[in-house]
Amino acid sequence: MALRHFFRGLVLAALSVAAVVVHADLPQQVKKPQTMADVLAASKPSDWHALDPQNTLYLELASGRVVMELAPAFAPRHAANVKTLVHEKYFDGLAILRSQDNYVVQWGDPNSDDAAKKRSVGNAQASLKAEFTIPLSKELPFTVLPDRDGYAAQTGFSGDFAAARDPKTNTAWLTHCYGSIGVGRDLDVDSGGGTELYVVIGASPRWLDRNITVVGRVVQGMELLSTLPRGTGALGFYEKPEQHVPIKSIRLAADVPESERANLEVMRTDTPTFAALIESRRNRRDEWYKVPAGYIDVCSVPIPVRPIAAPK
Amino acid sequence: MALRHFFRGLVLAALSVAAVVVHADLPQQVKKPQTMADVLAASKPSDWHALDPQNTLYLELASGRVVMELAPAFAPRHAANVKTLVHEKYFDGLAILRSQDNYVVQWGDPNSDDAAKKRSVGNAQASLKAEFTIPLSKELPFTVLPDRDGYAAQTGFSGDFAAARDPKTNTAWLTHCYGSIGVGRDLDVDSGGGTELYVVIGASPRWLDRNITVVGRVVQGMELLSTLPRGTGALGFYEKPEQHVPIKSIRLAADVPESERANLEVMRTDTPTFAALIESRRNRRDEWYKVPAGYIDVCSVPIPVRPIAAPK
Repeated sequence: MALRHFFRGLVLAALSVAAVVVHADLPQQVKKPQTMADVLAASKPSDWHALDPQNTLYLELASGRVVMELAPAFAPRHAANVKTLVHEKYFDGLAILRSQDNYVVQWGDPNSDDAAKKRSVGNAQASLKAEFTIPLSKELPFTVLPDRDGYAAQTGFSGDFAAARDPKTNTAWLTHCYGSIGVGRDLDVDSGGGTELYVVIGASPRWLDRNITVVGRVVQGMELLSTLPRGTGALGFYEKPEQHVPIKSIRLAADVPESERANLEVMRTDTPTFAALIESRRNRRDEWYKVPAGYIDVCSVPIPVRPIAAPK
Repeated sequence: MALRHFFRGLVLAALSVAAVVVHADLPQQVKKPQTMADVLAASKPSDWHALDPQNTLYLELASGRVVMELAPAFAPRHAANVKTLVHEKYFDGLAILRSQDNYVVQWGDPNSDDAAKKRSVGNAQASLKAEFTIPLSKELPFTVLPDRDGYAAQTGFSGDFAAARDPKTNTAWLTHCYGSIGVGRDLDVDSGGGTELYVVIGASPRWLDRNITVVGRVVQGMELLSTLPRGTGALGFYEKPEQHVPIKSIRLAADVPESERANLEVMRTDTPTFAALIESRRNRRDEWYKVPAGYIDVCSVPIPVRPIAAPK
């Protein structure tokens, strides 16, 4: 395979939702300035944490599994309601209904407007009070990015999520980045509940921030969503039922036998290692780069994910 | 089709590379603040210009046509060289070799490393002096965005392109946005020439700005590239030759019979209408939105494209 003229030094360029296999026991011969590969190679086991099976969902499609992480710290009602919907097997047999280029894919009940045919939400709620922002609190972890953001007073990372906050309004929220999972709603801000969810598949639509509830993010398997044929109807909806992409099931990882789980760990965002990773993205030190940007936007900092190594 | 719980008011949400059909003769009952739909409906014929057939390329795939616009104002050597390659039919029968999720697709010669098999560039150049930036000049049109950008001193629009400039260094350049077309290169900054081109299919990789030559953008047909299966090799390269996506041809629009051209026009970026469009994106006034962002990044302002209406 020809590599001439291709980007070199970009092997780790687009990892925000991709798994990274890293050998943590490489020799500590790293010198500053570090590339992201350096940071990953030098990371310690304590720089990572396993995904919580109680907040991890598996969306099963014919093409494979999409691993999603819920964000109960930012959307407690919606995260709990989605889990209830999942326990009710609400999504099983429903479908991806929409794929709009450079924007979102979205799934739900194709019969949601037909009272006779629509799926029952069972013990879940059909709609909930919006969770566009949460109050700032000292308990909320927040690693602040050093650079100014156009859409928010401050941006950074809270737990496993890209986030923003505004000291003036005393609020924090999750930012709309590639892979973000949001809760579809109607004009009424309290009309969403989680029965229809969308995932960002294009450039970060940050103007949605604080206008819709973000309930989580895709951790692995984005390519199964981002490559779906685009719908030709308004907003990228599929025009024919046979174009719908069936959802085999959505399951909570904790409800799946351990042998069938995707055992993944995520880099912690509150560590010196992650601070070094941020700097490696603000100023790319790979030999290929000639002009370091001196900046990185919150959606362009990858939060690395990797399989948990089997015990030796 | 159920629309309940779906985003409403977002019909025009992600148009940066999509065609927009607009009826320009709607009644002028628009009141401020305007939505983007208002701006489009109120636009005059003089707010639009036809794509220049001498700078428009058609990438023909089995799935359809991708329409691309070259940017000779920013990359004169590379735009001319790509046109020469196209005249030589250099790309015909080559292939898309790479599809990396949330990053780029890239095409070129699968045999570029095999001196015996590689395609001849004919009268074109295999490599050229880099065109990462151009000198600022008074002749260069530039509509400045009102908001600060993280990656550049100023951002805005120059001709049909998202761009940036820095008065301190007296330079301007095209920004890496969804649909941007760049010139693959090796470590040597002058090693690219246009034989291998990439298109951005994910979140705006602005850290590439000023590190690689941007030679144009996709105007229509992005979905034919963005939905290609992702490559499973390093950097998203396809691992098997049978995965390569064949290029039937690339042609200059001027060399295609008029009856076979995609007759498109693009909204001018140096008009009050485009200024109104920018404002409609800085502060979304569609009823669905509750919190206008008061900001828009240069890659998130759509440059509308529409078919040229047939003469009546």
